[in-house]
Amino acid sequence: MEIQIGVIGTGSCDSEIDSLAEEVGREIAKRGACLLCGGMEGVMEAACRGCKEEGGKTVGILPGSSANEANPYVDIAIVTDMGHARNAIIASSCDVVIAVGGEYGTLSEIALSLKNCKPVIRLCSRWNIEGTIPARSAKEAVDMAFEQIN
Amino acid sequence: MEIQIGVIGTGSCDSEIDSLAEEVGREIAKRGACLLCGGMEGVMEAACRGCKEEGGKTVGILPGSSANEANPYVDIAIVTDMGHARNAIIASSCDVVIAVGGEYGTLSEIALSLKNCKPVIRLCSRWNIEGTIPARSAKEAVDMAFEQIN
Amino acid sequence: MEIQIGVIGTGSCDSEIDSLAEEVGREIAKRGACLLCGGMEGVMEAACRGCKEEGGKTVGILPGSSANEANPYVDIAIVTDMGHARNAIIASSCDVVIAVGGEYGTLSEIALSLKNCKPVIRLCSRWNIEGTIPARSAKEAVDMAFEQIN
Amino acid sequence: MEIQIGVIGTGSCDSEIDSLAEEVGREIAKRGACLLCGGMEGVMEAACRGCKEEGGKTVGILPGSSANEANPYVDIAIVTDMGHARNAIIASSCDVVIAVGGEYGTLSEIALSLKNCKPVIRLCSRWNIEGTIPARSAKEAVDMAFEQIN
Repeated sequence: MEIQIGVIGTGSCDSEIDSLAEEVGREIAKRGACLLCGGMEGVMEAACRGCKEEGGKTVGILPGSSANEANPYVDIAIVTDMGHARNAIIASSCDVVIAVGGEYGTLSEIALSLKNCKPVIRLCSRWNIEGTIPARSAKEAVDMAFEQIN
Repeated sequence: MEIQIGVIGTGSCDSEIDSLAEEVGREIAKRGACLLCGGMEGVMEAACRGCKEEGGKTVGILPGSSANEANPYVDIAIVTDMGHARNAIIASSCDVVIAVGGEYGTLSEIALSLKNCKPVIRLCSRWNIEGTIPARSAKEAVDMAFEQIN
Repeated sequence: MEIQIGVIGTGSCDSEIDSLAEEVGREIAKRGACLLCGGMEGVMEAACRGCKEEGGKTVGILPGSSANEANPYVDIAIVTDMGHARNAIIASSCDVVIAVGGEYGTLSEIALSLKNCKPVIRLCSRWNIEGTIPARSAKEAVDMAFEQIN
Repeated sequence: MEIQIGVIGTGSCDSEIDSLAEEVGREIAKRGACLLCGGMEGVMEAACRGCKEEGGKTVGILPGSSANEANPYVDIAIVTDMGHARNAIIASSCDVVIAVGGEYGTLSEIALSLKNCKPVIRLCSRWNIEGTIPARSAKEAVDMAFEQIN
């Protein structure tokens, strides 16, 4: 089975967060793991784009009813048609989660991941939730993620 | 359609939180609304117990696969068999949510409710999330909840 | 806890099926049980209307993201935002299911109910699936439903 | 994005159905598509085994709360923790579905796929549901599946 690293964050983001997410995606691909995310735009698209740049594999767990809503860097589209409830599937399916920035949706994914005892690394996140692990750079975040699952 | 007030909190709680949740349940019943919750023990059971003491109506949106896991004060059992993803259903189904105490599961419900633009009142909650409204007593929490939906 | 009788069928139906569904709803209310359904139009609305005519209680387990889509006879709206996956919740939450007419969505609910070992009564249904119990009238269907759970 | 072919069937099966499912998996891999299934034993495991024998890619959309329940031939594990409701995700995520044998769970997936207007090929299935396409061999089933999406 593949190592599955989740990247969570908002569907729209500024260029700083976009760059960080893209670098997180690249670092995941370099280590040979599979990137799981919500499959939409913003942080999700940036992370998928970075992952594909390095030849990695991406899975988008989509909220809507059509694979067409996936960003162009998603390889495998899981069409849940479950809105925000798909956040619980992301939290259950990842070995570890990296939160890049993020608003309320991301907060729900952080909480669901912690509830499932999954390690959560946070990068530039406003949500300083007890139990999450702060990282100072994209590379450090991915390094920490792999330390957590080894 | 009934007014549907959500009460969220942990599946085990100390006697102080139990008393608060029970009073929240009683106050909801006195105002003629329907109480929605996760249907399990702890805060959920205390709130349902209070609601039934005042002749109110209770709905439990259960995580497991059997109605038998519902606490004895649940009138209507929605058996989701969806684990924590049922938190998203609670957040979508309530007109307003009252968080009493709470851990990571409750945090996910707060985040999902805010994501859905539902008002969230918090009572004795460790989660001081931007956008939630603090209450100092059970009665005040329920008063605030009704103000939000009127 | 209430006895929970599911009524399943399509979101649009002819007047014959509408009358049957309405009568099923009335018969459920007369026996003091709670009617669960998908909360939308067609068979679901007719059954809820019949149930309310006799002073019964109705629950709509909705596929979309808003309680506003519920038919006007739904008392309690469970807003799943899960599309057809809500069919699995209906199948898990009912003590017994009555299928009135029905197309592919209904077939999925019949199959999920049988998978969950719930009795399924069928009335004017094109789906003659092994394990379902045929009824010749609305009253007989509801009588059979109550026999199954006693 | 990958072409995603669903293979559905029971969690336990006799050797004839096992062989058919394995061949279906092999044929999917030979055509370069990704195999989606429920990730468990029986037909799902046989199909994944065949797919991996030919170097294909497999996704298991699991009903339970742990990736450990996946069969050993699953590459990517989607941990839904949603029981039979995960059948709706399989039906939404595949471009086309091949039913091999199957009981009530499979019937629900056939119905949900047809409801979503996805083509359904059936092979040795007791469910002769209007709208499904019968195939006489594993190879024919996969040929038909690819014809449907082209």
